[in-house]
Amino acid sequence: MSGGPGLLFVVSGPSGAGKDTLVEALRENRPTLRYSVSATTRAARAQERNGEHYFFVSQAEFERLRAEGGLLEWREYNGNLYGTPRDYVEKCLAEGYDVIMKPEVNGALAVKAAYPDAVLIFLVPDRFAYLRERLLARRTETNEEIARRLEIAQEEMHFLVRFDYIVVNAQDRSQEAVRDLEAILQAERFRIHRYQDKELLGEL
Amino acid sequence: MSGGPGLLFVVSGPSGAGKDTLVEALRENRPTLRYSVSATTRAARAQERNGEHYFFVSQAEFERLRAEGGLLEWREYNGNLYGTPRDYVEKCLAEGYDVIMKPEVNGALAVKAAYPDAVLIFLVPDRFAYLRERLLARRTETNEEIARRLEIAQEEMHFLVRFDYIVVNAQDRSQEAVRDLEAILQAERFRIHRYQDKELLGEL
Repeated sequence: MSGGPGLLFVVSGPSGAGKDTLVEALRENRPTLRYSVSATTRAARAQERNGEHYFFVSQAEFERLRAEGGLLEWREYNGNLYGTPRDYVEKCLAEGYDVIMKPEVNGALAVKAAYPDAVLIFLVPDRFAYLRERLLARRTETNEEIARRLEIAQEEMHFLVRFDYIVVNAQDRSQEAVRDLEAILQAERFRIHRYQDKELLGEL
Repeated sequence: MSGGPGLLFVVSGPSGAGKDTLVEALRENRPTLRYSVSATTRAARAQERNGEHYFFVSQAEFERLRAEGGLLEWREYNGNLYGTPRDYVEKCLAEGYDVIMKPEVNGALAVKAAYPDAVLIFLVPDRFAYLRERLLARRTETNEEIARRLEIAQEEMHFLVRFDYIVVNAQDRSQEAVRDLEAILQAERFRIHRYQDKELLGEL
């Protein structure tokens, strides 16, 4: 909101690292932060609301959007399609609002390819075992799904070095992790490369 | 203090941008932050205390220190010598403390050359004219000194792109600028390149 375009923040990391809770807390603390809602063809879970947690769309709608270039990134997972609608993100950034999204790791890298200025934050639990606990506690997946998720999580750790930041969301310190994320959102606007397009002497 | 070595923060920018006040406020808010005191051969001004504002040393002492490689950077300004003692900085970093220093711009770049991991923050007033006002208000320099300082300041702006961050310390918003600096100090520890030496999967 400093006159220029907004910044795009992408929070990703292994499933079960606590992305949803942290991003929600962050949005509460920064009301001007815009959240990029994903589109999906999967059925809504109990408590999930259309347009808030996801845009729940039909397979045909999803494919039309994708064909039109309307998705920043998309992926198939467990037989369902997920994607990030481009319009909303670009509109918010152009209006000067910061945008946050939480795609899975490959999606995050796809967004970085489309927006090299995007800030990628990798969120990890303190111990890898913790992930298993959280997934088991959630009990919304079958054992096969959990095994597959753990396998994906292990793969995802190898993409870590292509991110900009890593934040550890340890058990009993999620408040600290929220503050860490806030510091990143705040500090990023002062990174020198955000000024390199400008007539430095003229603008300052 | 997270187990690894501390981080080195270098705050620089045109003279009169308010470095002294901001760094002092920052140190009050973060008591574990260590301040790197410069050595100088110039005479102490009223209110300046040895070992706090500067180490006031003789020309011979300064030259011995420099010859021994005991200075991270040094420069001559207005007929006096200024330099950053290496020992204290390295000791604090090794002990896990973050260190802050505020050399002039060439000094900042020399420190970056010695410590590529150092974080360089360029502090600027909101308007260039503001610098002149501050210098005039200070009334500790002659008119010739002020003219020379303004010339240096203009040169320094060209080094901007070699810094990591730029923070604007506008009139009536120095509290905000302190918070901006704090966010940078906080966020920097999560930058991914600080993890690249480690066995990522093993440590997490």
